[in-house]
Amino acid sequence: MRMDVPQALHMKGGTTETSYSNNSLYQQNVISSTKPVRDDAITCLYKETIPRSLAVADLGCSSGPNTLYVIYELIETVEKLCRDLNHEFPEYIIFLNDLPSSDFNSVFKSLESFKQKLSEEMVGGKQTGPCYIAGVPGSFYGRIFPTKSLHFVHSSYSLHWMSQVPEGVEDNKGNVCMTKTSPLNVYNSYYHQFQRDFSMFLKCRAQEVVEGGHMVLTLLGRGSDDPSLEKSCHIWDIVAEALNHMVLEGIIKEDKMDSFNVPFYAPSTSELESEVKKEGSFTINHLGAFETSWEAACDEKRNDSKEYQITQFMRAVVEPLLMSHFGESIMDDVFRHCQHILADRMSKGDLVHVSLCISLTRTS
Amino acid sequence: MRMDVPQALHMKGGTTETSYSNNSLYQQNVISSTKPVRDDAITCLYKETIPRSLAVADLGCSSGPNTLYVIYELIETVEKLCRDLNHEFPEYIIFLNDLPSSDFNSVFKSLESFKQKLSEEMVGGKQTGPCYIAGVPGSFYGRIFPTKSLHFVHSSYSLHWMSQVPEGVEDNKGNVCMTKTSPLNVYNSYYHQFQRDFSMFLKCRAQEVVEGGHMVLTLLGRGSDDPSLEKSCHIWDIVAEALNHMVLEGIIKEDKMDSFNVPFYAPSTSELESEVKKEGSFTINHLGAFETSWEAACDEKRNDSKEYQITQFMRAVVEPLLMSHFGESIMDDVFRHCQHILADRMSKGDLVHVSLCISLTRTS
Repeated sequence: MRMDVPQALHMKGGTTETSYSNNSLYQQNVISSTKPVRDDAITCLYKETIPRSLAVADLGCSSGPNTLYVIYELIETVEKLCRDLNHEFPEYIIFLNDLPSSDFNSVFKSLESFKQKLSEEMVGGKQTGPCYIAGVPGSFYGRIFPTKSLHFVHSSYSLHWMSQVPEGVEDNKGNVCMTKTSPLNVYNSYYHQFQRDFSMFLKCRAQEVVEGGHMVLTLLGRGSDDPSLEKSCHIWDIVAEALNHMVLEGIIKEDKMDSFNVPFYAPSTSELESEVKKEGSFTINHLGAFETSWEAACDEKRNDSKEYQITQFMRAVVEPLLMSHFGESIMDDVFRHCQHILADRMSKGDLVHVSLCISLTRTS
Repeated sequence: MRMDVPQALHMKGGTTETSYSNNSLYQQNVISSTKPVRDDAITCLYKETIPRSLAVADLGCSSGPNTLYVIYELIETVEKLCRDLNHEFPEYIIFLNDLPSSDFNSVFKSLESFKQKLSEEMVGGKQTGPCYIAGVPGSFYGRIFPTKSLHFVHSSYSLHWMSQVPEGVEDNKGNVCMTKTSPLNVYNSYYHQFQRDFSMFLKCRAQEVVEGGHMVLTLLGRGSDDPSLEKSCHIWDIVAEALNHMVLEGIIKEDKMDSFNVPFYAPSTSELESEVKKEGSFTINHLGAFETSWEAACDEKRNDSKEYQITQFMRAVVEPLLMSHFGESIMDDVFRHCQHILADRMSKGDLVHVSLCISLTRTS
């Protein structure tokens, strides 16, 4: 299965210092929202199985300052549990997965300081369980781990990227992915691609996760089942509006805009639930949607405007895909338009993203 | 434990196309010499344990055209065995280890074509067992894998690099590592560092390899226990001679030359054997030394001279360490000297390297 999404598109990505720091803040804000769900899941897993070796996979780990954030937190929770229960610490086996095009080199170079941080900061400064870390390149829409080799799977802001742009989306005029104004056949094409991808994801993980193992997935989603009623706004809505402006201005040709679609799909909670039930290997412990203000990506301490900061953040996420279709020369122009649109929208009210978080157990 | 050897120094390394192709040829020549030992070890392991999941680690895998050569060969041997015995193929779990500074990105990008090659070329074109590949950054002079997680460990031309330059080698004048003209105290310093490193290597692997697991290690070594009687010639002997010439010419200051020592040690078979026996977790199935002509690095089909080709090969191996001590500006000069020395030595007879190959079983 091919996954033709440039790695930098994963929302944790970004290639410039500016975008990193923006992403970093945004990530920390949204990651904290889901901490209770992860804490519950890892606590439940630990208490039920008391593993001496705890194998954790982070799918779509990306490479940046947040790559190991959740791993650190998970280990912290387990260490606290062990101290409370007077257990010896387990050994941790951490698998960091992303596409082969991701920058594993920079992640690997940061591991020594991560391990040092672990041993210095962990509860009471006590020595933690040994931690073995490996990089696993490959698309999570296929098998990437041995049979029954994982206890805990985590994925944050990666699963809204599909394995490919669906077929049959030629008449999605004025849009770049499935959105509230897309015609029904485009919605269906996107939805079916999501179904194929997400069911394949579940099928592969069902083989890789041990019985009783847990999985916590967070991704961008919709607040309502009917896409036309959706109130939240995703980055691609702003980008589409900017591109449409530039078509009107004659900077972008209409057919160039029409042929641009991205492999992005934000499902609703019931769309997620339906795939989990159909696949049948996992039970749902928690499934919820939550809103995050776009302003979560802004650093109050910075002097530049909020719309500038958000545009920088967007740029880090979407520029690689845009550039490969439209060329580098118009990129500054695209994001200037985005910034104007953002300023206008923000003056009329708070812009929000909807995220979904689902916590699953592999049934026996 | 710190391992301050630039990654490119591993003999499989190299950064230019020329050196790659040289290394490639040399590697394939020396790797074939040890194939029967690896074949025996993996056959024995398979027949004794019939693993459904076969975990193999390649320590010091480097990044280049030979990185996956031995892995391919090992899988080929197991697949043949399975066909002969009418067994289902196991799943393969491959761990590629090297220092965090190694270029894992380029290895990871080559994995798709490796897997394709596997499924196309394997015995009878029949589907192979699934193969899961992970990168594991870290020094093999420390723990890098979970307890009892490996069935087979392979390391080729990495273990002659020590974790650091030993202390107390100040009076190794005219030499850059332990060699036949080094004073006794320098020999002792190098030998003790080797003992500390190799016993630590064995201790760590003893915890990581399952009982009955196998380990095949190939490294540069000496043909005789008494270093002063050694007839083989290592790359560093030629480099030292070139540097000494340049000291006489006033291009390199004497104290700059005297303060240059490399963390390289070529042990004898009995030095290896002694550490294995002292550590006690492994039994020796095979321990042998074999000679390889330096000319094995030469491509007969090329028009340039053998000494030029060998110098290119040497340069890929030693330049990073030399450059960080002596600076970039004199590098061309150093290797011009090396080429003259090589031409002279080769006119007087064949230059040979000695390699050691040891095959071990983790005792129960």
